[in-house]
Formats: sequence, C-alpha cells, structure tokens
Amino acid sequence: MQNLETPALLLDERRMQHNIERMQNRMNQLGVSFRPHVKTSKCLEVVRHQMAEGAHGITVSTLKEAEEFFRAGIEDILYAVAIVPNKLDHALRLIRHGLRLTLLVESPAMAAQIARHGEQHGICHEVMIEVDTDGHRSGIKPDDPLLLATAAELRGGARLKGVMTHAGASYDLNTPEALAQMAEQERLRCVAAAEKLRAAGYDCPVVSVGSTPTALSARHLDGVTEVRAGVYVFFDLVMAEVGVCGIDDIAISVLCTVIGHRLDQNWIITDGGWMAMSRDLGHQDHGYGLVCDADGKPVAGLGFGKANQEHGVLQWTGEGDIVERFPVGTSLRVLPNHACATGAQHTRYHVIPRKGGAWPVWQRFGGW
Amino acid sequence: MQNLETPALLLDERRMQHNIERMQNRMNQLGVSFRPHVKTSKCLEVVRHQMAEGAHGITVSTLKEAEEFFRAGIEDILYAVAIVPNKLDHALRLIRHGLRLTLLVESPAMAAQIARHGEQHGICHEVMIEVDTDGHRSGIKPDDPLLLATAAELRGGARLKGVMTHAGASYDLNTPEALAQMAEQERLRCVAAAEKLRAAGYDCPVVSVGSTPTALSARHLDGVTEVRAGVYVFFDLVMAEVGVCGIDDIAISVLCTVIGHRLDQNWIITDGGWMAMSRDLGHQDHGYGLVCDADGKPVAGLGFGKANQEHGVLQWTGEGDIVERFPVGTSLRVLPNHACATGAQHTRYHVIPRKGGAWPVWQRFGGW
Repeated sequence: MQNLETPALLLDERRMQHNIERMQNRMNQLGVSFRPHVKTSKCLEVVRHQMAEGAHGITVSTLKEAEEFFRAGIEDILYAVAIVPNKLDHALRLIRHGLRLTLLVESPAMAAQIARHGEQHGICHEVMIEVDTDGHRSGIKPDDPLLLATAAELRGGARLKGVMTHAGASYDLNTPEALAQMAEQERLRCVAAAEKLRAAGYDCPVVSVGSTPTALSARHLDGVTEVRAGVYVFFDLVMAEVGVCGIDDIAISVLCTVIGHRLDQNWIITDGGWMAMSRDLGHQDHGYGLVCDADGKPVAGLGFGKANQEHGVLQWTGEGDIVERFPVGTSLRVLPNHACATGAQHTRYHVIPRKGGAWPVWQRFGGW
Repeated sequence: MQNLETPALLLDERRMQHNIERMQNRMNQLGVSFRPHVKTSKCLEVVRHQMAEGAHGITVSTLKEAEEFFRAGIEDILYAVAIVPNKLDHALRLIRHGLRLTLLVESPAMAAQIARHGEQHGICHEVMIEVDTDGHRSGIKPDDPLLLATAAELRGGARLKGVMTHAGASYDLNTPEALAQMAEQERLRCVAAAEKLRAAGYDCPVVSVGSTPTALSARHLDGVTEVRAGVYVFFDLVMAEVGVCGIDDIAISVLCTVIGHRLDQNWIITDGGWMAMSRDLGHQDHGYGLVCDADGKPVAGLGFGKANQEHGVLQWTGEGDIVERFPVGTSLRVLPNHACATGAQHTRYHVIPRKGGAWPVWQRFGGW
C-alpha cells in the first residue's frame, strides 16, 4: 500500500460484496425488484457486481451515467432527476440507439413538453411522475391535483409508466423505529399516488420507492414493485450515524500520506486535502472524515477539520510526539462522510487485493 | 445558451483575459517573475493565455498537473506541495523525460530522502524549502533551526534552489491596509529565510512568495524574485469579500436549469446540485454560490443554501409567484464561492462566445 501514489481512493471489495448481498437478499425477501442507483460508484465493475446479485436495471442521476452504462450493455435505465428541455435531445439519441430510458417529471408543463417532443420525433417517452412522500425536496404530493393534471399531459409522445419517490428525509433519522415508520410512510404515500392515478383510469404499473435507510428498514412493501438505493454499496459515516451500517461496513477510504507537521499547533499535514475528500457532514461533525491508520482502524485523538486543496490539516489531541508517532511518509486512511461526494473527487478506485498481490484499478467517470 | 445541456461550467474569456493582464502588469511593475498556479484551471487553453502575457513557468498542486502541462510543452514546473516518498519515482520519470521539476520540502528527514533518491538514480533534484510566514499551514519559520538543518541535507542527489512561502492567511483579511501588511510580512519573512541560508553559506537564488490577495496588495517586493498566484485567473466570491476583485470580475459560473418548485416552501429546484458546485464558504455565507439570471446579473431574494447530488434547492424570499417568475426550463447562473473547488467538479469549460456563434469547449482534467 505504501507504494501507491497518494491521495488514492481505496475500495474494499469484500465489504462492498457483503453490502450488495445484504441489500439484494433483503429485496428478495420483500418480494420487490431492485434497481440500484449507480450515482454512488459511477463504475462499471461495481455495477456488474450489483447486476450479478440480481439487480434489474439501474437508476442514474445524469444522462452521462445513462450513456456510459448503456454503452456497457445495460439497457433499462431510470433517469431519476426531473427532465428539462435542454436534455431531451440527448435522451432521444440514447433511446434511438436502443436504450429503454425512463424519464421523470413533476409538473404538467414539463409533461406536455415531453409528450410534444416524443410526438415530434416519432417516439413514445416512458415517464414516471415524482411523488413527494416526506417534504424533503421534489415531487407532487399524492393528494395534490397536480398529480392527475400531470398524468393527463402524458399522451401521444409520452406514456405514464408509474410513480416514484425518494424518502431523503430518512437521512435525518437514527432509530430503527423512526426509520421503519419513514419506510412505511414512503410506501403508503407512493402507493396512494398510484391508486389515485389508477382510480382516474390511468395505467400505473410501476411503484418505485427508495433510499438506503428506508430500503433497509421497511417491514413490508405491499403495493411497491421496485426499490432503489445507492450509497449502501459503499456506505459511509452518515449511514453509520443513521444506524444502517457499522464503521466496519464502509468499503471506501482515501489513502493519504503525512507530508509535514506544525508542532506549535499539534497539526499533522497530509497530502489529502479537500480535493480528495468530501465536505458533506453527517449529524456528528467528523470534519472531512474519520482518520484511520493504514489498516483502516480509527486513530483516537486525530481530528480532520481543516483542509486546503491538496493539504489536509489533522489536529492531534492525544499524547506523545507527533513527529515520532506520525513521521513524514506515514500512511493514513480517511473514511468518507458521504461516499457519493468523496468518490466523485476521484477518477479511479484502487481495489485492495483479497490475498495480496497486484491492486486492480477500476475506473470511474464524472461530468455530465 | 438555453441549448447547452445543464449543469455546465461557463467561462467568460474577456473577464479572464482582463484578470490575467491585471496580474501580469502588476508583476511587471513590481519587477518580479510570475509563475501562475494552474491548480485553479487545470486547463491548457487558460494556461496558454497566462504564458502569452508573460508568465515564466508554472506552479502545480499535483504531479498529474505537472505531467499534463509538461506534455503540452511547459518545461519549468514547481510542484508546490511537500513531496513524500511515494511520489519520488513519478517525479523521476518526468525529470528523465526532460522536465525541469522543482520539488518542495519542509523537514530534514524528507530532504535527506530526496537527496538519497537523486543519488540512487544519478540525478540532482532541485528543491525549494517551504517557509511559514503566517502560521497558516505548512513550512519552517525563518528563525527555526530546522531551516538550516533541512538545507544541510540537500546535497549529493539534491540541490537547494531557494525558498518559497504562501500567505494563505491573507484569505481571512478584507481591508487594503491589512492585505498590504500581510504582503509585507510574507516578503520580509521569506527574504529573511533566504538571508539566513545565504549567511550560512548556502546559495539561495530563488525567493518565491504569493497568494492572490498578497500579490495584488504588495507595495514593493525587494528581495523577492518570483510571485505565484492561482485563483486570480477566474476570481470568486471569496476574493470579492477579501476585496481584491469585484463581482463583475468573476469569470466562471455554473449554468443550471429550473426543474421544479415546492410552493409550500418557496423553493425553486434546479439541476445544479453539490456535484456541480463548491461547498467552500467565504466570510459571508453565500451557501453554494450567488444566484444570477442567465445574463449573470445577481437575482435579489434567491438564496442557495441546500443541495443534493444533482438537485439545487433555491430559497425564494422575494415577492410574486415562483412558477410564473422561474418556470421549469429557466436558466440561472451561479457564481462560485471558490473557483478552484467549483471548477474541479467539471470536466470542461463552455466558453461564452465574444460575438455570438459557436461555444468553444476547453477541457480540464482532474485526479492525481
């Protein structure tokens, strides 16, 4: 490991595989299809592991992801951000090449534009309506008249495929009871939206819910056909605080190296700055992440609250001489606050070999 | 502009050119060589503009930058992060291909390792000692015995080229007087370190100082041979708060599109989430940046304090109906808190054409 040029994003494949199996087994037990959100990894090898365990199709956050994964052979993709006009031609190109791309909408005006676009180009867009089940961010509430008004516009060049929701508010919870309640609320309200559409005469075959915390906390998913989740594949400190994983389940970390010391401040300077980390914070303030030794064991007394572009500034509050304990060249690993954000700072994963030997490199992509 | 797929990083070339000329003219007046820090842009076209105006060599924050810019023909590069053992072989490869690469060190132990590495491989590393002139982060204080102890190790496979400092503490100031004082402190202490080395018999030809605020605030630079600065090329909200640029000098912005609304919260949802922005904050809390209309004019009453990966959540505190005023499809531009951090989230710049017509695309790279 000490030969790897730092900073470097490490991936523990054994932990990742465990996380994938845990989620897929749960989905199998709950009797729902699973469509992982690949925005967390943006990596073909990771997604291949998810498909191999039984995932059906994927969820993406950008058309770039749709394009990359379609090129790699995945033909059923949900683009889970409400579409806008400037992206319709890109979507069309992918559909014309054979991708089964599902779009998302949350307003009658945009639904009408999608339908018009489909008609103009002689295709029928498959569209889901985003449902707001927790007031977290986007979507139409099940009892809002906009739900039926939006569905009414999906005709001609567009067809209603179903409803989807994301209970992002679950990230703010941290007890099994609260999480199970949120999962039930997500299910109930999304199913209610589907029922409302069906009662009005619309076909609404897909009912898609999900977030990592609710997917792992739902007790049953009656009426739901599909679950989506993303960050579970690596987990992170936020998920550990929510309580759906342990620190030992976190599958990625940033390897960095001690480059200097500031004795008057008890600072240890590393080559892992904000460029290699994530500023996303969980409920507890871990700063830029949890500092561990080269083996991934947390180092008590070593905080990481300050960073510049390529400098991490670690605060030592323990005993002893920092130059002796953490000499220049010392390897440290930082567990991410938010795996999606930390991963996004890197162009590849260095996969820790299971039994020594060479380190596989898995590429990841960015951009739009 | 409305045809650009969003989010997209826009670059105003006219503003950038003005910023480049302003800095280079100042350096010419002060009689020092200028070595821009290219970590801000990581873009060949941008750096070519800087070289064309008179820059001598460049400063980089990663060996990846050194590699990319050397490949493009730049042969004099300072790697301005203290080197560690795992990077020496990468440095060696570049040097063997003909790059004049200068390394940075701030401890006798690492200086000894660099010298040994040079000797083992039959080369002589050119090395600068990092000097701490403001207690901001790294380096050796001018009066610390470590300064001479570090220089003493630079023999055999390494040669002392000079001293360098970065007055990062200048980012916390915001009056011309305080900035001029900080620039003078940076100069005085870095020159003092050089003098101390010279008095002990070391050759110390280069005295390199710099940060955007001090470079633009120094009244004279006697004893300094070279200045470095990076963010001035684009400027950002932090620099505007420091007072060394105006909002109208900021040359990059993130174009995004309204994708929905949450009427009960007065939220406008866009497709510019944290993936496209920067979480770095200045003194005033601009959240994820300053929201402007499609022409780049700030929109009063529209705050940007909340974001998910691909969703920006804007808070409207003005009058009127948000759906009417900002319908789905509306273009908005967000000025960055920290240009280096926001730029890093993107793979290319869309250059605003001076007189209409096609939009040039300039690539930028990331990673290490």
